[in-house]
Amino acid sequence: MTAEDTSPDVQLTDDHRLRHFLSIDGLNRPLLEEILDTAASFVEVGDRSIKKVPLLRGKTVVNLFFEPSTRTRTTFELAAQRLSADVLNIDIARSATSKGESLMDMLWNLEAMASDMFVVRHSDSGAPYFIASQVTPNVAVINAGDGRHAHPTQAMLDMYTIRHYKGGFENLRVAIVGDILHSRVARSQIHALRILGASEIRVIGPRTLLPVDIEGLGVQVYTDLEQGLRDADVVIALRLQKERMDSALLPSESEFFRLYGLDEHRLRVCHPDAIVMHPGPINRGVEIAPEVADGERSVILHQVTFGIAVRMAVMSMCISGQEGGGVL
Amino acid sequence: MTAEDTSPDVQLTDDHRLRHFLSIDGLNRPLLEEILDTAASFVEVGDRSIKKVPLLRGKTVVNLFFEPSTRTRTTFELAAQRLSADVLNIDIARSATSKGESLMDMLWNLEAMASDMFVVRHSDSGAPYFIASQVTPNVAVINAGDGRHAHPTQAMLDMYTIRHYKGGFENLRVAIVGDILHSRVARSQIHALRILGASEIRVIGPRTLLPVDIEGLGVQVYTDLEQGLRDADVVIALRLQKERMDSALLPSESEFFRLYGLDEHRLRVCHPDAIVMHPGPINRGVEIAPEVADGERSVILHQVTFGIAVRMAVMSMCISGQEGGGVL
Amino acid sequence: MTAEDTSPDVQLTDDHRLRHFLSIDGLNRPLLEEILDTAASFVEVGDRSIKKVPLLRGKTVVNLFFEPSTRTRTTFELAAQRLSADVLNIDIARSATSKGESLMDMLWNLEAMASDMFVVRHSDSGAPYFIASQVTPNVAVINAGDGRHAHPTQAMLDMYTIRHYKGGFENLRVAIVGDILHSRVARSQIHALRILGASEIRVIGPRTLLPVDIEGLGVQVYTDLEQGLRDADVVIALRLQKERMDSALLPSESEFFRLYGLDEHRLRVCHPDAIVMHPGPINRGVEIAPEVADGERSVILHQVTFGIAVRMAVMSMCISGQEGGGVL
Repeated sequence: MTAEDTSPDVQLTDDHRLRHFLSIDGLNRPLLEEILDTAASFVEVGDRSIKKVPLLRGKTVVNLFFEPSTRTRTTFELAAQRLSADVLNIDIARSATSKGESLMDMLWNLEAMASDMFVVRHSDSGAPYFIASQVTPNVAVINAGDGRHAHPTQAMLDMYTIRHYKGGFENLRVAIVGDILHSRVARSQIHALRILGASEIRVIGPRTLLPVDIEGLGVQVYTDLEQGLRDADVVIALRLQKERMDSALLPSESEFFRLYGLDEHRLRVCHPDAIVMHPGPINRGVEIAPEVADGERSVILHQVTFGIAVRMAVMSMCISGQEGGGVL
Repeated sequence: MTAEDTSPDVQLTDDHRLRHFLSIDGLNRPLLEEILDTAASFVEVGDRSIKKVPLLRGKTVVNLFFEPSTRTRTTFELAAQRLSADVLNIDIARSATSKGESLMDMLWNLEAMASDMFVVRHSDSGAPYFIASQVTPNVAVINAGDGRHAHPTQAMLDMYTIRHYKGGFENLRVAIVGDILHSRVARSQIHALRILGASEIRVIGPRTLLPVDIEGLGVQVYTDLEQGLRDADVVIALRLQKERMDSALLPSESEFFRLYGLDEHRLRVCHPDAIVMHPGPINRGVEIAPEVADGERSVILHQVTFGIAVRMAVMSMCISGQEGGGVL
Repeated sequence: MTAEDTSPDVQLTDDHRLRHFLSIDGLNRPLLEEILDTAASFVEVGDRSIKKVPLLRGKTVVNLFFEPSTRTRTTFELAAQRLSADVLNIDIARSATSKGESLMDMLWNLEAMASDMFVVRHSDSGAPYFIASQVTPNVAVINAGDGRHAHPTQAMLDMYTIRHYKGGFENLRVAIVGDILHSRVARSQIHALRILGASEIRVIGPRTLLPVDIEGLGVQVYTDLEQGLRDADVVIALRLQKERMDSALLPSESEFFRLYGLDEHRLRVCHPDAIVMHPGPINRGVEIAPEVADGERSVILHQVTFGIAVRMAVMSMCISGQEGGGVL
């Protein structure tokens, strides 16, 4: 099973509303804009004294993390709590699989317990698609990152951040820097930027960390950092996924920083109002200099704040899509 | 301390209402039927858009799992959430005992924190009885499985399932297949079936996996699968507790399946409307063939759904029994 | 960074209300009494059928335990639940640090998720001060124990217990027995007792387990147990922190018990109405005999009950201090 085998339609209802949220690929511009607009209404919830809305009260959200990620799990848990849902965290490594139960048997059991949503992270590309293709009509599946394939909620919070600071995507030059090859984040960002109409998408990295078919995604490819950054309005540094890399691909972290690390000096060629983004957690001194991460251009922590709102938006839209009602 | 040392009365109030839920043994038919009837009212809650009732709001339920079981813990956590209780999961292996604290000191501390209920799983038979005999009047104890002794909520969800599909227990032939010796589930099922008036209870398994005193429980014993299944209305496959067996008792999993595994061919001798049950998690190809687990006779996933409702029933009845008020 | 480097003022607002709760040192008597009075109003909540008040509804409390402690984490989780807060438990060992993220980057991320409170336990003295000095105005920090430095909520629940049983601190002789050197609890107790006006504070222990500068804290030092216990109104046994001791400091546990263990015989020299306290978890037969831990003088489990109320008080006062409103 690969992500390419699956129809993108599984994530939509017959009347083109969100049923699951699996990848940006296959969604259209109005739907992405609906996610951003819905998220905007939830950003305000985070500023309230009582940061809670009752939209998912009495719903059960199950965090199914086959690949550990405290950060991402925490953001989904917070988003669910602020929608008033009940949350179950299933520690996969220690649970069913240790008793020899199959994945599908575990999922069928969770369905039978009247779960409403599975938030899935998996090291296999396409696993959330496979799960979504198998679940009953009562369960929504959210992809919280699958292999090298997609990380669509991260991409949407990035889009929210760009729209917030740049007003929109027209006439926008976006540069994505680093380990494109292993990055599900980059893949989802590129799809989202194209659908939302960004005028120029650039990827910058060493040849060894660029997918061979990368031009096919409609991006411009740079191996020289400064050429790629020239006049960019948005610069997105990717996390160097050290745990995913074969040792042969890169000489060392310091070598990577020397060639592709973002520091103030290199950013001088960007547009004067350029913002710097990063999906986190950051490796200071590897893909980004501390002075940039903490500097005036950095909107990295705002991405985190918007991320809760975007996840609340996606979760409530999927539940609403299944019930056939409106979210707001 | 063994389960036999303890009086069954500890689980009842002076006016014969449920105070703890420790074993089926010692309860009478009206009380078991009250559990089933109460559960029926909660099955409907699982179908609601808002799957929550406020019966245990402001109560603290502590999951005390001395033996790990994500599945069972999850069902109790969900049941507690849907009753609006607050849930604490205590990871015993990593907690008090690692600091040398005694079991009773840990329990007294949890009591002092104004806990209302302990859900206990323990590898020692009788441990929940011992705990129930020690707690203050404000705390209810639910047995979530103790050693080879009992698993009473599992048995009651099985009874719920049988009553749901068969209308009652009169004129009913129930066959329990597999590792009877190590199964707390089987022991609790046999007690429940007798109390509820099932006309014939059969156990089927190799002589090495049958307790020596099994006839004393009022069951008919079969070592031949097809003879035992003949005209059965309900067939319950037990999980092969591989982790509990001495290697000498059985030659291999495939040998077990050859002799006692449920497949379509063998089930042909059952009553035409027979249902197949399993407490889960299932070992496909060991005690049950996939075509049976996923087939028309299988009600395995319905057991899971009913299990949440039965646990809600038992939890609310115990809390109600302690407060002296009615649950519904 | 050491605790001594930090100004105690970080825990107060400009109008001298509680903003963080980091150590007893630096707080004045009216504020400690306000904590005790606020706690008194919460003790009653634990007796209610619905043990919940909505004071922190829609707030996010994050348990950041860099040093494991199921007991203390559980009390804070319960306190937060009973204030209706949402709770996130971050398992530090398995999370951010395993991906090489810095402590401050993790905290900034949690802040950006609109967390309202960090409950911090850390093996480094002063870590909660450092964190409090760095967080945004929207986040309160509660010290749940840092190194050998302080454990202020434990000290305040001890003060609550003493005031409850003794009516106040005037004319009161308090004896603290055991491993003073490694005890953050003793340090916080001594500060609290002095601020609240206890007339005599004694520490009792072997010379090797007494800090060299101990007299500077305004206490009387005893190396002989019976001399120290004479006419004491309150006796506090400390937990022998076996995991923190160098093997050279003490010969053995039995030797410790022979010299400093509290048993009925030795307590005969105390005031006839003396109470015995212990922060828990207790080592039976090491620092305290079972007959004392379970005896008439013991108020150890009442400390636990009061501990929930004291933590609710501190949490609600910190949130209230940040919002500029009153808690009650």
